[in-house]
Amino acid sequence: MHNDLIVIDGLQYSNWSRGIFEQLREGGVTMVHATIVYHEQIRETLLRIAEWNRLFEQNGDLIMPVKSAADIRRAKMLGKVGVMFGAQNCSPIEDDIGMIEVMRELNLMIMQLTYNNQSLLACGCYEAEDSGVTRFGRQAIREMNRVGMIVDMSHSGERSTLDAIEISERPIVISHANPSSFHAAKRNKSERVLKALGESGGLLGFSLYPFHLKNGSDCSLEDFCDMVARTADLMGIEHIGIGTDLCQEQPLSVLEWMRNGRWSKEKDYGEGSKSNADWPRPLPWFRDSRDFPNLTAGLLARGFDRDDVARIMGLNWLHLLEDGLSPRSGP
Amino acid sequence: MHNDLIVIDGLQYSNWSRGIFEQLREGGVTMVHATIVYHEQIRETLLRIAEWNRLFEQNGDLIMPVKSAADIRRAKMLGKVGVMFGAQNCSPIEDDIGMIEVMRELNLMIMQLTYNNQSLLACGCYEAEDSGVTRFGRQAIREMNRVGMIVDMSHSGERSTLDAIEISERPIVISHANPSSFHAAKRNKSERVLKALGESGGLLGFSLYPFHLKNGSDCSLEDFCDMVARTADLMGIEHIGIGTDLCQEQPLSVLEWMRNGRWSKEKDYGEGSKSNADWPRPLPWFRDSRDFPNLTAGLLARGFDRDDVARIMGLNWLHLLEDGLSPRSGP
Repeated sequence: MHNDLIVIDGLQYSNWSRGIFEQLREGGVTMVHATIVYHEQIRETLLRIAEWNRLFEQNGDLIMPVKSAADIRRAKMLGKVGVMFGAQNCSPIEDDIGMIEVMRELNLMIMQLTYNNQSLLACGCYEAEDSGVTRFGRQAIREMNRVGMIVDMSHSGERSTLDAIEISERPIVISHANPSSFHAAKRNKSERVLKALGESGGLLGFSLYPFHLKNGSDCSLEDFCDMVARTADLMGIEHIGIGTDLCQEQPLSVLEWMRNGRWSKEKDYGEGSKSNADWPRPLPWFRDSRDFPNLTAGLLARGFDRDDVARIMGLNWLHLLEDGLSPRSGP
Repeated sequence: MHNDLIVIDGLQYSNWSRGIFEQLREGGVTMVHATIVYHEQIRETLLRIAEWNRLFEQNGDLIMPVKSAADIRRAKMLGKVGVMFGAQNCSPIEDDIGMIEVMRELNLMIMQLTYNNQSLLACGCYEAEDSGVTRFGRQAIREMNRVGMIVDMSHSGERSTLDAIEISERPIVISHANPSSFHAAKRNKSERVLKALGESGGLLGFSLYPFHLKNGSDCSLEDFCDMVARTADLMGIEHIGIGTDLCQEQPLSVLEWMRNGRWSKEKDYGEGSKSNADWPRPLPWFRDSRDFPNLTAGLLARGFDRDDVARIMGLNWLHLLEDGLSPRSGP
């Protein structure tokens, strides 16, 4: 069944190479939301896009850029892996609201309002307190709604996330996280947030990053699929998907960059700790993108019917993007 | 008496020209803290510094750069006006803690952690809520303490200001604002903040910007000096000074830039309003820097003795800078 599906991975930040693209295709992935920047600002974001343009040029037989939701079905038809650009922080717009449309024109389709820390737009999940979406943030969400850029609150605080759900006139996402009830990590989300997200038409992508999972790298496929089932009951089957948070073949220095950017002279360990500073061990049943069929099999084994598995593995993401990426006409 | 004083203006953002430098000298100003940037980021800040270098080159008979507190006494001796660089927002360090030392090496001596809105470091006084100094902000204050850059909270919210006073190991300033009890503007400060500022060894510079004054442009010199006297009682005579907030010969477009930066598609009117969007009328007794002697006279008339007037007009600022601008030795 897996090969017939439209499979969407709602977030990866791998050390992109031909080998990784081959794994994505082997795993039957139709489209991957690729993080192109964490803390990069305007100029650096353009450099990352240029690097991607070169990857597209060199690997055109395997991958293609996603410039609209229609490109996802096109990728499926062509047997290629679609790559959709996203940002894990709002640094690509710096302090300029006009950069939202400019970045969207460069096919940045999804952007987090914060990455762990407080930003100009809202507050991250690692700050001691979260005072919600700011004056600039309110305008930024409306502008993202207007140009068709998806709001992602994966690394945001509770209050900011509830604010964003309320302010946004189009559904938003939490592209990669799990319920806190499954594993109490700062990055995971409360039932209150998940219910509000589902009710607003939004989507949660389940993370396979071991720090977000019960028992970490020893989390079983059965426990994972059970969490999916319980979240489907909470949020509704249309509001869940996958967002693996795969960071394949990245050196420790990249993890340190993700966690510390340029803001810290001390070392911040994110979901890890000083004695556990490195990348977590991969899950035995999800080592890399080749293991997507294991997810399909696990969900079927958990009792989801084929239609529901198709929704979770990609159709829910597809429908959200088909709606959310279209620019709004006129004022 | 005025001409014998060391007179320090704790903030101006004028449309700098030879004519304005001449007015500063005519008014007996020994040193002016000149805002060189509002929302400018690293590259733009360097452009502003280059513009200043040209002004120093062209007007070396009138002005000189302040590269240490000793340059203030030197300016007095030479009969020149010292110019000390400051930033009204933390945008010159962008997201990089290492930029604090780099900017200090370029003689940026004082920096606000926020300008009205939420920043990466803290929260501004125009946001609906203020969750205090952030993770990055805590490190930034420590780094400013280390390199000898003064923390300025003029445009910050109450909670962030109290946090900064507590976190900073060296005295901080509110370079240009007045007590809310004198005039209830969002930019003015509560008794709680002013008391904490005084107790921590910090300094308040009284603003002469009409939007910060009782009766606005019709505020009398007597009322102003009375406010000074009452604040001296509250904070202690060593903890007050002047920070005029003069924005001379600036077009409306600059006011709009200050208020809106690049973050807003709507128009924000700051302390003004849609029907009162322009620069306020100047005070008749403080039209520009030539009127500094009126302040000295007004304070004497209010009953301050000569030593206290000397403190308020400049010595308190001087002492704070003599202590605060020295880099700390080793770790």
